[in-house]
Amino acid sequence: MSAFTALQRLQWSALDETQREAALRRPAQQTRADTAAAVSAILQRVRADGDDALRELGARYDGVALDDFAVGEDEFEAAQRELSPALRAAIDQAGRRIGAFHAAGMSAPYAWDSGDGVRCERVLRPIQRVGLYVPAGSAPLPSTALMLCMPARLAGCPEIALCTPPRRDGRADPAVLYAAASCGVRRVYKLGGAQAIAAMAFGTASVGKCDKLFGPGNAYVTEAKRQVALLEGGAAIDLPAGPSEVLVIADAGARAEFVAADLLSQAEHGPDSQVLLLSDDAALLDAVDACIAEQLRQLPRAETARAALAASRSIRVESVAAAMEVSNRYAPEHLILALRDARAWLPQVQAAGSVFLGDWAPEALGDYCSGTNHVLPTSGAARYAGGVNVASFQVAITVQEVQPRGIAAIGPCAVELATAEGLDAHRLAVALRLEQVAA
Amino acid sequence: MSAFTALQRLQWSALDETQREAALRRPAQQTRADTAAAVSAILQRVRADGDDALRELGARYDGVALDDFAVGEDEFEAAQRELSPALRAAIDQAGRRIGAFHAAGMSAPYAWDSGDGVRCERVLRPIQRVGLYVPAGSAPLPSTALMLCMPARLAGCPEIALCTPPRRDGRADPAVLYAAASCGVRRVYKLGGAQAIAAMAFGTASVGKCDKLFGPGNAYVTEAKRQVALLEGGAAIDLPAGPSEVLVIADAGARAEFVAADLLSQAEHGPDSQVLLLSDDAALLDAVDACIAEQLRQLPRAETARAALAASRSIRVESVAAAMEVSNRYAPEHLILALRDARAWLPQVQAAGSVFLGDWAPEALGDYCSGTNHVLPTSGAARYAGGVNVASFQVAITVQEVQPRGIAAIGPCAVELATAEGLDAHRLAVALRLEQVAA
Ligand SMILES: [Zn+2]
Ligand SMILES: [Zn+2]
Repeated sequence: MSAFTALQRLQWSALDETQREAALRRPAQQTRADTAAAVSAILQRVRADGDDALRELGARYDGVALDDFAVGEDEFEAAQRELSPALRAAIDQAGRRIGAFHAAGMSAPYAWDSGDGVRCERVLRPIQRVGLYVPAGSAPLPSTALMLCMPARLAGCPEIALCTPPRRDGRADPAVLYAAASCGVRRVYKLGGAQAIAAMAFGTASVGKCDKLFGPGNAYVTEAKRQVALLEGGAAIDLPAGPSEVLVIADAGARAEFVAADLLSQAEHGPDSQVLLLSDDAALLDAVDACIAEQLRQLPRAETARAALAASRSIRVESVAAAMEVSNRYAPEHLILALRDARAWLPQVQAAGSVFLGDWAPEALGDYCSGTNHVLPTSGAARYAGGVNVASFQVAITVQEVQPRGIAAIGPCAVELATAEGLDAHRLAVALRLEQVAA
Repeated sequence: MSAFTALQRLQWSALDETQREAALRRPAQQTRADTAAAVSAILQRVRADGDDALRELGARYDGVALDDFAVGEDEFEAAQRELSPALRAAIDQAGRRIGAFHAAGMSAPYAWDSGDGVRCERVLRPIQRVGLYVPAGSAPLPSTALMLCMPARLAGCPEIALCTPPRRDGRADPAVLYAAASCGVRRVYKLGGAQAIAAMAFGTASVGKCDKLFGPGNAYVTEAKRQVALLEGGAAIDLPAGPSEVLVIADAGARAEFVAADLLSQAEHGPDSQVLLLSDDAALLDAVDACIAEQLRQLPRAETARAALAASRSIRVESVAAAMEVSNRYAPEHLILALRDARAWLPQVQAAGSVFLGDWAPEALGDYCSGTNHVLPTSGAARYAGGVNVASFQVAITVQEVQPRGIAAIGPCAVELATAEGLDAHRLAVALRLEQVAA
């Protein structure tokens, strides 16, 4: 790939509607037909042959044949010993912040008396059996283990299973194990890819069937989640998945080297990551291009980043207000407001996964340790969905408790409406009780 | 159809695991291939030809050719005049209770300082463009209009569209219009079926494109929602839909005529509704059968109910505790606890859409006016999802605002984790800022 010189530059005010739509279009995310077929075959095999299929698929795709997928106590202990004290401390510290922020945002049960003798409530229950997937593609991701285990634990899910691909030596990544164990999650299986999703969705002799699956993954994992979510008797999933993305709005006062580093952070996630930079200041856009070129020279993952940058854009806008409109239309997973008065612009944000205010809030903090979750809506899903949180691991159940005087008070209203809707048994169920109360 | 004599009776303790699974199996919900193909063709037509397609499809399926789908001010006024004062009062009263219960359960924004100079927040935004579908199959459903419009309004959604099928005379049902207007929703379109879903998902000249679609419907509407949710650039949907269902747990003290009426309320919703009755008392099961036979004679919708009852079951259990286990496994949309100490059993409920405690809480109250929502998870989705509520119409966005002293405090943790994960640009984005802070 040729050396980076500049992001593709557009001027928003010069674009017509079709060009604007094209400027904000994400790289096509159609799953290749062969990926879908391969995943479908894997799901069927695991559903039919259970653990035997998992062993064979693990040998083929992870290059390691395991008799027992479950991580044992000794492996957890070895992981703890092996990790540097600094990394253990960082995982502990990040876990504490993530736990505290998520705990502060938990829903509460509530009750409301709809009338004398009519009590309505919402109670919360943990989803009973949840399955978490922690990838280890280019590198293992202990931070993802924290982002999934911590809210599952806070929700009180009684059965939490975590799948993560084994290394070639048959062990799980020690940092992932340490992170999971730090949240009290010890049911960890060394399973990767679509077969891990299949195992959690359908259950096998080793792995319990789950009600809902969480976590990011490669194209196979994503497609497997999509397929099991569609199957009768399959599992629910957390979010529709797509490549990671960031939109940065920077003004003339922003620091080009910070902006460049933030864009590169996003770009290094994968060749299909998308990066958009918006500014009303052409000099800033030029300076960021120069800083990207400079920083790229130091990056081990420069090839990945360069591929992502090739599909990315910088857009010159007339004003910050115009940039906010573009951002709301795009609905980015990550939105960085590198603005002098970033806080003042927050009320204008209508759709984004997570927002980073000011020069000192790099997206990397949200990935690791500010306290917010890094499993966020991509591909424009921020228009209608937020990121993973404790409520993602709970069900809210409504309750009504009615006394005889309560049905006397509100029953006639139900009778009137049931009559209007022509639902006579509904009318009767209320009327019979009203007769008894009156008697 | 032959006269009803009794529900199919099973004894739980006598069933093996396979039989138990069969006893709780829902009637197969596979969409017929011809339904899927017909819906797919309708979606494509509306996407391509917009309003012209809507006019033609409306003429074909609703039997009425409309130039203008939008309900005008005069039609709203006529609806108000036409409705009986009693029905208007019932809609108003139900709306007040639904509004108050939903308002009481709204999420709040919150902020939490993750450290000195690190503020994390969750802010809430309404989904900008929502589409509501109110069916009018066997009868128009003003109650569904309330259940969808009220939380959309409370969430503050700026654009709320509602589609409902026109009558043969080209007008919308006046009760549905009155209910919508009572919630401040006046953008109502006379469109039904899959074409209504297509119009809201893709947008036409008349109907704005929506971010998320809500509401129940027939097999075509359900399939259309499923298909648009899967399309790139389609709309999100509220819940996976299936036929309505109730599970009743009744003890020896329950009133058989009440239980029978509650089962019939469910059965009259449609021939594919499912009804399960569990009791540890055989005499109660017998008495309920007798009451169902008796009440069926009075019901206008008896044919529908009989069809649903044919696929329904009563199950004799050893104890109420055993019944609770069965219920949690089935995860019913509606759960009626016709028990002497219903409140005491509530903590055992792990998965259900809405729970009705005691003899005086018929499911019909929840359908209309207790205050809870009647758009609830079916087909076992209560294992992982709750019913529609204000949060269904909102997105939660996380925010982090970081001061220089804040990144000094938590930056090193991010550097350690980024290094462990091999994400060097992430490390750099934090490290560059740490250098500046130190300087
Ligand atoms: Zn990142
Ligand atoms: Zn009902």
